[in-house]
Formats: sequence, structure tokens, C-alpha cells
Amino acid sequence: MPLSLGEIAVRFGCALQGDPDTLVTGVGTLAGAGPDAITFLANSHYRSALPTTRAAAVLLSEADADELGTAAALITDNPYAAYARVAQLLHPPAPWNPGVHPSADVAQDARIAGSAWIGPQAVVEARAHIGERVRVFVGPGCVVGAGVSVGDDTHLIANVTVLNNALLGRRCVMHPGVVIGSDGFGMAPDHGEWLRVPQVGSVRIGDDVDIGANSAVDRGAIEDTVIGDGVKLDNHVQIGHNVRIGAHTVMAARAGVAGSTVIGRRCMIAADSGFVGHLNIADDVVLLARCMITHSISEPGTYGGGLPGDKLRRWQRNAARFRNLDSLVRRLGALEQALERWRRGSDGSGDNDG
Amino acid sequence: MPLSLGEIAVRFGCALQGDPDTLVTGVGTLAGAGPDAITFLANSHYRSALPTTRAAAVLLSEADADELGTAAALITDNPYAAYARVAQLLHPPAPWNPGVHPSADVAQDARIAGSAWIGPQAVVEARAHIGERVRVFVGPGCVVGAGVSVGDDTHLIANVTVLNNALLGRRCVMHPGVVIGSDGFGMAPDHGEWLRVPQVGSVRIGDDVDIGANSAVDRGAIEDTVIGDGVKLDNHVQIGHNVRIGAHTVMAARAGVAGSTVIGRRCMIAADSGFVGHLNIADDVVLLARCMITHSISEPGTYGGGLPGDKLRRWQRNAARFRNLDSLVRRLGALEQALERWRRGSDGSGDNDG
Amino acid sequence: MPLSLGEIAVRFGCALQGDPDTLVTGVGTLAGAGPDAITFLANSHYRSALPTTRAAAVLLSEADADELGTAAALITDNPYAAYARVAQLLHPPAPWNPGVHPSADVAQDARIAGSAWIGPQAVVEARAHIGERVRVFVGPGCVVGAGVSVGDDTHLIANVTVLNNALLGRRCVMHPGVVIGSDGFGMAPDHGEWLRVPQVGSVRIGDDVDIGANSAVDRGAIEDTVIGDGVKLDNHVQIGHNVRIGAHTVMAARAGVAGSTVIGRRCMIAADSGFVGHLNIADDVVLLARCMITHSISEPGTYGGGLPGDKLRRWQRNAARFRNLDSLVRRLGALEQALERWRRGSDGSGDNDG
Repeated sequence: MPLSLGEIAVRFGCALQGDPDTLVTGVGTLAGAGPDAITFLANSHYRSALPTTRAAAVLLSEADADELGTAAALITDNPYAAYARVAQLLHPPAPWNPGVHPSADVAQDARIAGSAWIGPQAVVEARAHIGERVRVFVGPGCVVGAGVSVGDDTHLIANVTVLNNALLGRRCVMHPGVVIGSDGFGMAPDHGEWLRVPQVGSVRIGDDVDIGANSAVDRGAIEDTVIGDGVKLDNHVQIGHNVRIGAHTVMAARAGVAGSTVIGRRCMIAADSGFVGHLNIADDVVLLARCMITHSISEPGTYGGGLPGDKLRRWQRNAARFRNLDSLVRRLGALEQALERWRRGSDGSGDNDG
Repeated sequence: MPLSLGEIAVRFGCALQGDPDTLVTGVGTLAGAGPDAITFLANSHYRSALPTTRAAAVLLSEADADELGTAAALITDNPYAAYARVAQLLHPPAPWNPGVHPSADVAQDARIAGSAWIGPQAVVEARAHIGERVRVFVGPGCVVGAGVSVGDDTHLIANVTVLNNALLGRRCVMHPGVVIGSDGFGMAPDHGEWLRVPQVGSVRIGDDVDIGANSAVDRGAIEDTVIGDGVKLDNHVQIGHNVRIGAHTVMAARAGVAGSTVIGRRCMIAADSGFVGHLNIADDVVLLARCMITHSISEPGTYGGGLPGDKLRRWQRNAARFRNLDSLVRRLGALEQALERWRRGSDGSGDNDG
Repeated sequence: MPLSLGEIAVRFGCALQGDPDTLVTGVGTLAGAGPDAITFLANSHYRSALPTTRAAAVLLSEADADELGTAAALITDNPYAAYARVAQLLHPPAPWNPGVHPSADVAQDARIAGSAWIGPQAVVEARAHIGERVRVFVGPGCVVGAGVSVGDDTHLIANVTVLNNALLGRRCVMHPGVVIGSDGFGMAPDHGEWLRVPQVGSVRIGDDVDIGANSAVDRGAIEDTVIGDGVKLDNHVQIGHNVRIGAHTVMAARAGVAGSTVIGRRCMIAADSGFVGHLNIADDVVLLARCMITHSISEPGTYGGGLPGDKLRRWQRNAARFRNLDSLVRRLGALEQALERWRRGSDGSGDNDG
């Protein structure tokens, strides 16, 4: 559906520099947008594209507005968030007919809200509850286990497995291959073998949670694994049993949290980062890529932990030195002491003062 | 089903301090358990909760028993293993009716044991064999490929793919999203392109093997990929073609093994650890988190390989220095030599002896 | 189908040392091959097995031929590529009957080529196009989304999800659990919460692309994510939104590419390697295992970035020193200056020249 720049300005509190009647029908990049598209500038990296963009309008900050060529300016403090809202209006979810596809397998005592859609070949098991406007988008492989509850307006895209008794909040999106409620990795050593420890907890997921493709959230060993409201997990993220993740924390691809670690609110965890088990992490902690956290963190702060790659020769030389770093430090200490002794000795002789 | 403490003590050889007739109906944590639950103490980290636990009984070691308040003590050398066994009794698998769901697609020449259950919309292909009491739990997306054999009492939870001719042992659990028998990553370089090398081996999985959500075990290039008895793999674990993993080895989340590496028995591989290809790893090797192994290991032992993250400023300063570690060592060597020459020179002059 | 050594020699331009009429019916390893199998030597690591192999013939380079015992030699410059081609002939894909399995769910306006096969319980949505000889091998969980196009001779093995409007080229193989076209991880911060940014781009995949088990390729935020011809991705690979990967680049298991990074042609990316977002990587770049790339690379070259694991004691000592590497360098610098001042002082006194 087309939107006028005037309507956008009013709805989202932007200052408009341009014709309020101009219509936009879609979104584009600064470089690629056509004359009926709206775009945005949130990353100064792309600032140089402002003068030449063919977009109808650009959502951007006041500081950048004067760089614009012919495009109208929609000035806002948070261009990216404003863009997200405009794009949501311009690209509404496709309409659907409520109901249950004849090829889906739904248990008699499952409760399916009248406005929900259960796609082909989905399976909804005993006592499961599916909320209003829920869309089990593309049925195959979507499994809603016994006693599961799926909140209103939540989407299971495809091949999503939600196992027994897990609770999903409202307005969540579970991407393909997501597994919720798999057994935690609880194994008890016993005479050189491993006994499976029954995982009798479940998983509770808040509202507005997104979980990316092929991510997994294990059920708790005894109590539940808990994902707070507004948490966003990227692809291939692994959440161990009994983990608790605070509201509005985001974790990028391949991040992982080992069992029983508790992560605060509004944390930002970059790709390939990980936490060992049984830690407590404060609110507002930021981890850069590849950061491994092995101790609890009690204060907000930013952490690094990845070594950037380097040309092979240099990398190999440095990596080889790393294997002797401890002895290197001892050599340095010995040298410092030798020089110190020396100075004292020499000072005694006084020779070197002249 | 409820158990009396007396029965637990007798079955599992625990020394009971408390009323043998007390019944427990479930499990709980030390902090959360109610008066009809049993719990355990295996990690001294939680010792402080002993005096106040409301649990009916606690499985714990003799050394900890005197810390208990009102709870009965079930004293054992291995509280966690004892807990695992008690929890298995208190939480038996749900009963099921054997058979094949009408929506499942089963090849005419597949052999399905009479006590097995094939859930809705599962697919069992030609010549596949499904053993006694096998449960293809939640059918959708469970694929049992042509010529596959699934041992007695093995469970495929949901969306599990087992491709042609793979052999699964008895009492295994394959969690959702597991892929067994995908092609190994065999690509032959040829004039700047890559030729797919047919992967004609298969996968053999022993008894009592658990494989976690979204893990993958590739089929062998020519001979088979082999997973030994009692191996436990966590989520997102990747096993390359021709790998052999010895019995009772455990691998935590996101660990990976590149092609043709052979890992011994009873190894413990922590999260994010990895092995390059074509290695031989001894029995009883332990890897801590993030450990990358690039050479064969001939003796049992414990290895580390992860650098803990640090506050960003300090991390960045140290990481920058790492890029010059080699030249740093050269500077130190030059300094040592200078001081040595100096001493000799000075000794010659004798000045600094007085 | 059996092949004669003579036929192999002619087809693939090998020099034959042996009886051209000898037939081979399959492949084997140097150590395991029987008398009707062909094998190869591409890795000198296995050279010692040449004299004793029982194989009928060995594909190998001229330099290795004189090591052979009774086996015939098929001499070629690229034994591994020649092996790949021979193995493809000896192990052709199983024949199949074209058509749509009755249990599959195919939209009325989907176009399915006459020679294609859609397996049980697959789902093909509106306006999707399935090319000639496409095999949606094992149907369950295979989802071909609305408007998707799947090129001729491409295989979706099982539980493959291809979401709306993605384009797959010809002769591709998508292994189980692959997800194509999941939403990119686009989240706009807004007053301490995260707004989902609609991902309106798609995915374009070239010809001859293989994608391994449980890998994921996100759709673009605005424009498309693009995977070039002949790209080979191993298992658990993660490709972020707007990424572009050049033709014939290979990426091993668990590698990842963050959003908007552009990777050149013929790159070789080892396991566990990763790229941060918004980079440009030249053609012919090689990354060794665990290499994290944080800056653009403008020239071909080989990069390292993984520290090999070490015995725990030594690793811990070195890792502890790493946390003080910066101060260590400062200490060294101070020492150098002290010695320099000293020398000047001493030279002044002249004492140490004698």
C-alpha cells in the first residue's frame, strides 16, 4: 500500500523537507532505490550516496539532511527505527485464511483459536493451545508438542519443533529449523559411562522474541529455561538448559550459552561469542565477536575476546611465540633484575655518574 | 509413580538417614523442591542450600550429609548418577500405542517391529528396518532412508533425517533437527572449480548414543563414519566424513571434528572445541572450551585453547601487541645479548666488582 | 555399472600401466579396496600403502607410479579430480520415477517439470517453479516457498526449507536441514527495545552450488543475498543478509559471514572461520581454521587466526601472561631505554671500552 511522505512524517514524527503528497510504494537502498521508494541513512559509511540517490525520500538525521540532492528528507533522531516502522507498513504480512489445512494432523483436544492458520502437514499434539492469529506458516515439519502453548500473533515459519509443555509468548517469530525444548545436555558420569539425566523442566519464551534459523533452546533439567521479552536470537544460536536471558538482549549468529548461566537485560552479544556455564552476567553487557566469557560479570561494560586473523607467516610466528609467552616474561624479569643489580653495583663504584 | 526412600536406598545402595516410608513423587532443585520431591547435591557450589532445603530427601556424599536440615539423606559416592537413576524411575517415558500413524508414508518392503511406533507424516523408505519399541516420536520430517536400520528402543524425536544405509544402535536418542548420513564435504579442485566427490560410505552409530538438536554426522567418503557406543553429542555438533569417535566420548555444543580424524574412548570435549582433519587422538583426552587441536595426541591429558574475553580497552591493547609478539621476542633477545656483552666488557674492566 | 581400465584411461586422459580389459565395479581406499575396485592417491600421507594395495587400479601421479605393487596405474596430473569423475560413473544417482507423491501438497499454480520428482509430504507453494529432473528427494519437511524457482537437476535432499522468491540454480544440492531465505538479523534499537526490520530482499543461488546440512542463508534486507556459481558450503555454515559470495568459493563447517560482506571468487575458507560485516574480500583469499577477519582484504593471500590448543598448565600460564601483554611491552621498552642511557653514560666515562 502506498504512503505519502506527509503521512509518514505525521505518523512517525519526522520533519519533512519535501512535498507531503509524494507517494512511496516500497523501500530501497540509497544506491538502488527508484523514484517511488523510500530509503534511510543510519550508517555514515554510506553518506556519500546521499547527493545522488534517486529515492523519493530518505529517513536520516538532521546533520545529514543538507547532503541530500533531489530526494525529500524525513528528519528523525533514529532513522533506522523509523525506517523499520515505515517498511513494516509498506510490506505488511501477506493475508491468509484462518483454519487448519486438511493434511495437518491436529489432536482432538488441541485448542486452535479461530483466527489461527495451521499449514499443510503440521502436527499439533494433545492439549496444545494455539492463540489468535497464530500462523504455522508452512506446515511441514512444524511440530507443536503436547501441552505447548503458542501465544497470539506468533509465527512458526517452517520445520520448527516446539516440544512438550514449552510456552511461547505473543508476536514471536520462530524461523525454520528452530528447536525449542530439546533435552538439555545432562549426563552423569558413572564408571566410565554416561547416564542420561532426565530433563524434566521446560522452556518459557516471552513476547516479541525472534529465534533464527537452526537455533536451539534446550529445556531445563528441573526448572525451566527462560527467554525474556523482546529477546532476539540470530541463526545457529545455542541456549543450554536452565539458562535465563533477560529482556531485550540480542545474540548474533553462532553465539552460545552453556547451562545455568543467567544473562541480564539489554545485553548485546556478537557472533561466535560464548559463555561457560553457571555464570551471572549483568544487564547492559556488550560482547564483541568471538568473545568467550568464563567468569561472572557484575557491571555493565564492553568486552572483547577475538584475535583478528593475520597474514599467515606473521600469524604463525606470533602464534609460535605465544606458546612460550610465560618463559618470555620470566626472561624479561631476569633482565630487569640483572640491570637493577648492575646499577646498584655501579652506583657503588660511582664510575658511571661522570 | 511414587517411590519410598527405603526403596531408593535399597535399589541404588544408598545409606539412608531418615524415614524409609517417606514417599517422593518427583524431583526438584535444592532451593525449589517441595516436601514430596527428591533432590541432590553434586556441586559444592550449592552446598549452602542444604540446611534450608524443603525437599523430602537429598542424594549426596557422606561428607555433605551433616549439613542437612530436616531433609532425609541418601548417602552415595556418586550423587549425580544416583539422581539420574531415581529421576528415570520417577519420570518414565510416556506410554504409547505401537503402530504406524495413517498419515505416515512407509515403504511396502520396510520392516517395522510390532512394538514400534511411527508417528504422523514420518517417512520410512525401502528396505528400512525399525526395531522393537522404536519410537519415531513426532513424525513430521522424520526420514528413515532406504536401507537404514534403527535399533531397538531408539527414539527419533522430530525432524530427524537418517539417510540411506545408516545403522543406528539400540537405546539411542536423536533430537530434533539431527542429520545422519549427509554427504561428506568432499570436493576435488579441478581448473579453478570443484568437483563433487561421491560419498559412498555410510554411518554406523553404536548403542546408547545421544545426538543433540541440529547436529550433523556426515557419511563416509568410501568407508563409514563411526560413532562408538555410549557417545553423547550435544547440540550443533558437526562430525565430518570418515571420523571415528571412541566409546563413551562426550562432545559439548558446537564442537566439530574434521574429516578422517580418529578420537579415542572416554574423551571429554568442551563447547566450541574442534579438531582439524586426519588426526589421531588418544583415549581419555580432555579439551576445555574453545580448544582447537591441530596435531595428533598420543597420551591422555587435558588441553586448553581458549583465551578468556577481557574489558575491551585492555583486550584491544593486548591484541594489538600480539600482532608484534615475534618482534617483541627479538627485542628481548637483543637486550639480553647487549647486557651479556656489557657484563663481559665490564668484568674485563673489573670496575663493577667493588 | 562396471568400467574397464581402458575406458577410464581414454575417457579421462590417463596413461594406463596395466591390462585395459580389467573391469572395476566400485571404489575403495588404498588399504581397503578389493580386486574389483579402483582407488587413488592424492595425499602423500598414504603413499606407503601403494605397494600392498589389493585394488585393481590406482589413479595417481607419475611420480608415485613406480611405488605400485600389483595394481594397475592410471597416471594423471590430478588423481583426486579423476577419481571424482570415475566415482560419479561407478555410483550414478539411483533412478527415479518422475511425478508428485500423492501425499505431497502442491499448489495449483505451481509449475512442476514433467521429469521432476516431488517426494512424500513435500510442500510446493503458489507460483513456485520446479525445473526438469529436479528431485525433492525425500519429501518430508521440504518446503518450496511461494514464487521460488528451482533450477534443472537440483536436488533437495530432505527437510530443506526454501522460502519465498528464492532462486536456486541448476545442478545444486541442498542437504538436510538447509534453510534458504530466512529473515536476515535486522533489528533497529529503539528506546531499549529492538524493532524487527522487514527483510524484503531474497536469495539468489547460482548453478552447481552445494549447501551442507543445517546451513542457513538469510534473505537480503532490501536487495538480495547472492551465492555465486560453483560455491560449496559445508555443514552449519551461516550466511548473513546481503552477503555476496563469488563463484567457486568454498567454506568449511561452521564458517560464517556477517551481513553485507562481499567475498571474492575462488576463496577457500576453513572451518570455524568468520567475517564481520560490511567487508570486501578479494578473490583467491585463503583462510585457515578459526580465522576471524575484521578488515577488508584487497589482495589474494593466506591468513591464519587460530591459536593451537596446548597442555592445560602451559596454556593457562601463557593465557594469563596474555592479559598483561601490553604492560610487558612497556617494561621491555623501559629496559631498552635504561640500557641505552646507561651505555651513553658509560661511554662518557670510557671505562668499558678497555
